[in-house]
Amino acid sequence: MNRVWIKLALITVVIAAHQPFASAQEGMPPFDLQTGNAAIQVIIPAVDPIFFEDVTVNGGDPSILIRYTTLIVNAWFDASAAYHKTAVGVYSTPDRQQPYDPTDNSALNVAMIAGSKVILEACFPAHAQRWQDMLDNAIGDRGGEPEIKAAIRCGTYAGRAVWLGRLNDGMNHDGTMGGRTANPMPFADYTGYEPLNSAYRVRRPSHWQPAIERMGTGKYRTQMFVTPQYGQVTPYTDLWSLNLPLDPPEKSDAMNTEAYQEQADAVLAKSASLTDEQKMLSEFYENKLFSLPVSAVVASMKQGMNLMEFVHMFFSQEVAIFDAGIWVWAKKREFDAVRPFTSIALLNGDAPVEAWGGPGKGTTQIPASQWESYLPVADHPEYPSASACLCRAHATVMQEVTGTNDLGWEVPFSAGSSFVEPGLTPGADLKFTFDTWDEFAEVCGMTRLWSGVHFEDAVVRIKEPCTTIGTAAAAYVQGLIAGGKK
Amino acid sequence: MNRVWIKLALITVVIAAHQPFASAQEGMPPFDLQTGNAAIQVIIPAVDPIFFEDVTVNGGDPSILIRYTTLIVNAWFDASAAYHKTAVGVYSTPDRQQPYDPTDNSALNVAMIAGSKVILEACFPAHAQRWQDMLDNAIGDRGGEPEIKAAIRCGTYAGRAVWLGRLNDGMNHDGTMGGRTANPMPFADYTGYEPLNSAYRVRRPSHWQPAIERMGTGKYRTQMFVTPQYGQVTPYTDLWSLNLPLDPPEKSDAMNTEAYQEQADAVLAKSASLTDEQKMLSEFYENKLFSLPVSAVVASMKQGMNLMEFVHMFFSQEVAIFDAGIWVWAKKREFDAVRPFTSIALLNGDAPVEAWGGPGKGTTQIPASQWESYLPVADHPEYPSASACLCRAHATVMQEVTGTNDLGWEVPFSAGSSFVEPGLTPGADLKFTFDTWDEFAEVCGMTRLWSGVHFEDAVVRIKEPCTTIGTAAAAYVQGLIAGGKK
Repeated sequence: MNRVWIKLALITVVIAAHQPFASAQEGMPPFDLQTGNAAIQVIIPAVDPIFFEDVTVNGGDPSILIRYTTLIVNAWFDASAAYHKTAVGVYSTPDRQQPYDPTDNSALNVAMIAGSKVILEACFPAHAQRWQDMLDNAIGDRGGEPEIKAAIRCGTYAGRAVWLGRLNDGMNHDGTMGGRTANPMPFADYTGYEPLNSAYRVRRPSHWQPAIERMGTGKYRTQMFVTPQYGQVTPYTDLWSLNLPLDPPEKSDAMNTEAYQEQADAVLAKSASLTDEQKMLSEFYENKLFSLPVSAVVASMKQGMNLMEFVHMFFSQEVAIFDAGIWVWAKKREFDAVRPFTSIALLNGDAPVEAWGGPGKGTTQIPASQWESYLPVADHPEYPSASACLCRAHATVMQEVTGTNDLGWEVPFSAGSSFVEPGLTPGADLKFTFDTWDEFAEVCGMTRLWSGVHFEDAVVRIKEPCTTIGTAAAAYVQGLIAGGKK
Repeated sequence: MNRVWIKLALITVVIAAHQPFASAQEGMPPFDLQTGNAAIQVIIPAVDPIFFEDVTVNGGDPSILIRYTTLIVNAWFDASAAYHKTAVGVYSTPDRQQPYDPTDNSALNVAMIAGSKVILEACFPAHAQRWQDMLDNAIGDRGGEPEIKAAIRCGTYAGRAVWLGRLNDGMNHDGTMGGRTANPMPFADYTGYEPLNSAYRVRRPSHWQPAIERMGTGKYRTQMFVTPQYGQVTPYTDLWSLNLPLDPPEKSDAMNTEAYQEQADAVLAKSASLTDEQKMLSEFYENKLFSLPVSAVVASMKQGMNLMEFVHMFFSQEVAIFDAGIWVWAKKREFDAVRPFTSIALLNGDAPVEAWGGPGKGTTQIPASQWESYLPVADHPEYPSASACLCRAHATVMQEVTGTNDLGWEVPFSAGSSFVEPGLTPGADLKFTFDTWDEFAEVCGMTRLWSGVHFEDAVVRIKEPCTTIGTAAAAYVQGLIAGGKK
């Protein structure tokens, strides 16, 4: 692979994860079907702006984002099976084609784009023209070649099979579950989850309270537990046979008075000592369209992966985080645990505490009831941490696939680039280097503590189960590649 | 006033109420400080896009929008007092200047823009450069003239006095009320309102239930009663001496079984017989940045008002709708009444009913529990209708100021321009002509029934009280103009 374009492609992915499509495309060489990587150069740059427009503000919302990305990457994988000697797809294996030759990515690229197009048309029909353009622009004047035509058929076939295969997997993607025949509510709960506390009042101090969120300049809404059914979704791996125990969050049990107080105090102490580096790392991991996929792209560059290897790697990490999400959501629902903002307010009322005082306020004395976490608190119960588990499963599967713990990724944060404190944080340009995958996962967990959205147990206890999930994901995809699973 | 530019200006206002600033400016003649109208040509086109970006999606959210527009228009009025022989401002009267001469709008225009700039900088500080540009571009190369310098001082003085005068009027504009010293929550409730029902469960069927709203492609949030404190805000007029009785909404009392059922059935019947014209008129009135201000601009054109008359008229209607909003919000909070979607679901459960079945579905059989109103249901209790009262107060004050019931406004709706059913509704181009102000108010009320967001009593019962408020607003501003009030 050409080192120059892949550097440019990486920049594209990074920019696309932050900015609209048009600017992401500036200064890029034209996509070369034969030598390029459609995932990095075509599909991600087309999709990310729509995610930021229609799905998520800052790249949080993992349960929904991972849903979309997994369908897309699964389509790549199933389409790629046609170009592999032994691999079978998850939902279909298109007719075998001429096996992939690393000197010509053309057919595999087209099949990946065509598969993505099917998924994207189903998920984002209002942008149908964009998905058509994505394919047409990539193919250019080669649409008449039999190899390209066959690739479109392969990709389309694979995309349809993935879409239909996952349509009724329990996620309520089309919003019709629970007997909903009119006014579909995609991804809405159909299982009858109801929070034990309201935004107005806490009656069950061990349990989750929906937070109040501001919309626009002066409207407020209360959270609903996002996709409480995600824990019931069909996993890729034999997730529920993996034996992944998790103790209850004893310290969040308000009956354990001392521990309940201690873990709340620990969050305030971290809030009071937030550094610029901690703030920027917290934001880095909050953006699930940046931290996770870009680290995978970086690793693929270091390894000099060809396009088929890239697809196998990328699908492995998608399976890992998709299944990790299922496990986390099942546990979140089971324990329905209190977030720090609730227990801090309950314990201290309006008494002054020392903490981060809000954007631009630094560390100061504020009434405990008015304390807010540095990162916006997510719309699901606290225990265990989704981000920590996703990072751990991702780091594990990346080690399995690449055969090394080395990552060596230097991430720059330019002065004032914070989305929480724009123009202010960080005060000067920063760099952070992730030497290893273990460090990548470890720091990820820490940021959830620094940023005040989690207690410690939610982060440290996921290490073993989420490592196991990552390992299982790698083995699962290896099985498919070897043709051993259907 | 030049008929050509005022026609173009009207188009600008209409477009600005729908589209981003840039496109609204296309094809417009440059603003002429001497003969132009800064309200229509400069301020509204600068502000409306920010409202749609930061405050409201479709121009609903009257309690917050009217807050902003009233501060701005009050600044125009108080600044204009300096250019009038007798008028006094509400919060200040800048030093008297050379009285307004209808052949030269320059000073009054600059004073209006400078006053708006102060309010806008306070309300939308993130757009500070936009407000500076708004003033600079309007003044052009005339910034050195003593008359222009004085006008900037007048407007700035008036704007500051309005901002400070209204800062602690009970609306919690800066988000610090209720002892909030950290993380301010502008416009948030500080009075302890708590809904009697939750989005999950109805225990008090006579009362308001927060609706569930979708955010992005798959997240849901529950409503909170927007600005429940608005009923306690200091009015302009002697609102609470006007004796404005309103009976309780007896039919929304679930103990009145038959009436409760009848009024719910009536909403379903209207939903089942929705016409394209009814849909488009509903959307027209939903957009409070279009229906109300543009009708006032149309009337000002018909009357050939000069700029001073325009300011007096526009402030009169702002006072009318601001005070009407206070009265409505106080009553909404007092009665805390159920919305149609709740009672329809309670009465019918999952039984099939005939009704509008959602965007593009037309009239069909759907489970009653899944019925939705054509317009998105607003985030405040049902009784009485805010829109109906605002329209009635507005229509009344406009009759008082213009001395006629004649309106004669033809509003076109182009095929497919609906925001609820884009591309589909209306099926063909439509026109609707408002012959009189009474008709404007009457049809406004009807749209709240057609669109399924109100019961009949909430609309018909506001006629007398909201007429009184409109009359009082006109008299109040007349008093200021005569110099009789301070």
